[in-house]
Amino acid sequence: MTDTVISSKTKDVIIGFEQPFVVIGERINPTGRKLLAAEMKAGDLSRVEADTRAQVAAGAHILDVNAGIPLADEPAILAQCIRLVQSITDVPLCIDSSILAALEAGLEAYEGKALLNSVTGEEERLEAVLPLVKKYGCAVIAISNDDSGISQDINVRFDVAKKIVERAQDYGIPVSDVVVDPLVMPIGAINTAGRQVMELVRRLRNELKVNTTCGASNLSFGLPNRNGLNTAFISMAIASGMTSAITNPLHTEIMQSVRGANVVMGHDAECAGWIANYRDPDAQGSDGRGRRTNRRRRSGSG
Amino acid sequence: MTDTVISSKTKDVIIGFEQPFVVIGERINPTGRKLLAAEMKAGDLSRVEADTRAQVAAGAHILDVNAGIPLADEPAILAQCIRLVQSITDVPLCIDSSILAALEAGLEAYEGKALLNSVTGEEERLEAVLPLVKKYGCAVIAISNDDSGISQDINVRFDVAKKIVERAQDYGIPVSDVVVDPLVMPIGAINTAGRQVMELVRRLRNELKVNTTCGASNLSFGLPNRNGLNTAFISMAIASGMTSAITNPLHTEIMQSVRGANVVMGHDAECAGWIANYRDPDAQGSDGRGRRTNRRRRSGSG
Repeated sequence: MTDTVISSKTKDVIIGFEQPFVVIGERINPTGRKLLAAEMKAGDLSRVEADTRAQVAAGAHILDVNAGIPLADEPAILAQCIRLVQSITDVPLCIDSSILAALEAGLEAYEGKALLNSVTGEEERLEAVLPLVKKYGCAVIAISNDDSGISQDINVRFDVAKKIVERAQDYGIPVSDVVVDPLVMPIGAINTAGRQVMELVRRLRNELKVNTTCGASNLSFGLPNRNGLNTAFISMAIASGMTSAITNPLHTEIMQSVRGANVVMGHDAECAGWIANYRDPDAQGSDGRGRRTNRRRRSGSG
Repeated sequence: MTDTVISSKTKDVIIGFEQPFVVIGERINPTGRKLLAAEMKAGDLSRVEADTRAQVAAGAHILDVNAGIPLADEPAILAQCIRLVQSITDVPLCIDSSILAALEAGLEAYEGKALLNSVTGEEERLEAVLPLVKKYGCAVIAISNDDSGISQDINVRFDVAKKIVERAQDYGIPVSDVVVDPLVMPIGAINTAGRQVMELVRRLRNELKVNTTCGASNLSFGLPNRNGLNTAFISMAIASGMTSAITNPLHTEIMQSVRGANVVMGHDAECAGWIANYRDPDAQGSDGRGRRTNRRRRSGSG
């Protein structure tokens, strides 16, 4: 039983084996969104604000914030976005960049205990990111690829995850602050991609005792009706023990699948979240998580 | 690896660990359908005909046929329905009754190797139904309750299933012809109902090596948005190893969830079924099962 606590100034969210599944909203990310990228680069963050409100209203528990725009001052923009988002919502954030300086600027700007996205098993990345995780007392997403790339052998992917967890421990970072992404491959190209994830999640949970996350929509890359396939996949990943995912909370099918999976897993006490959301089909209710985390409020734990 | 072959005169459907999930259409059942019950009793089977065509078009692989109408000649009506349905479709059938004489009349009328619904662990039922299964060479659904009722202890439910499988073997019925229903309880009343099923399915598969089925919609009894919850549950049951379910194929969400789960499990080669169904959102395509079973056609194996 492992709980990973992610916090804003006033709110905790727990990623854990016996907790409702945590949805990390993926929308604040200019990758593949030309208009958003141009606006962010020009200092117009109105769409970031709208994406924040919409994702929180849709039920996201954590918001991923990425400012990866080519030829822009990513550290400054990321810090600015984080301050803006934290002024709008008390939902905790996931600070997302491939650039070390941006990760650090984000952590510097953030109030609370963030989830850092991400470290890999690559030596250079390990030795650059883990000291930051230790310094800021945040949690980190560990992606199970290394200098040799992404292995199709799940034993290798498991071993990479193990290496990252062990290296984190060398830095004094507890296992509970490492959330492993076993890597979801496109199933149109790799027929075993779904089983790989389900098997890896089980092993990561049973053997390494870590929480897990993934970019859920990678699975459906190149296929029609991606949303329909992602919807089936996310509940199956939850059945296998996955405890969070980076996905689009604005897709109502995805959120319904997550809420349904919480019921099936016995993580929605008396089905209160389900009933609140679907008693009146027009209502946008709570999912039962709010009440719990509110009871555990604490201030600035990062 | 266990394959349960169910056949009509000209078509096999395989319920199996490495097969696409088998959807057993539940609609031809007068329970709770007053109009259908009245029509069937009066000899009007037009709605049975319509339900047959609609379920097959929606992608059902097997059709359940039940004629349980109070104060009617159930054996005669069931036999009549089976002959009618078999004249319309080559999809194999599941013969469903709580009355022994109706089961036998149904088996007598049926051409092929049917799935019989059902036997339980109750002594009287075991000793009455299993000889029929042996005599007609059909397969049978084994429901894991016995004379003491339905246990909330999954070890007891497992032991009941084991007893039925062993008793079937005493009658010369192979393990592959027993499809166990672990019993799905309403999760609104029993918070662990989902986990019970997932855990039981894993054990039934790994230890007893049997295929499994369930009445998937029982889970959501009494809750709002039943369809949404059933949709999440069915893909999670498939992730846990369930190989068939009795459900409503006319719910497009349910069928999408099943097809998505087949992709995730690696049971839809090159995603051909998924692509056929969803490339054009208006198309009602095949799910890739048809082609496979057609290659294995055989005649009257019951």
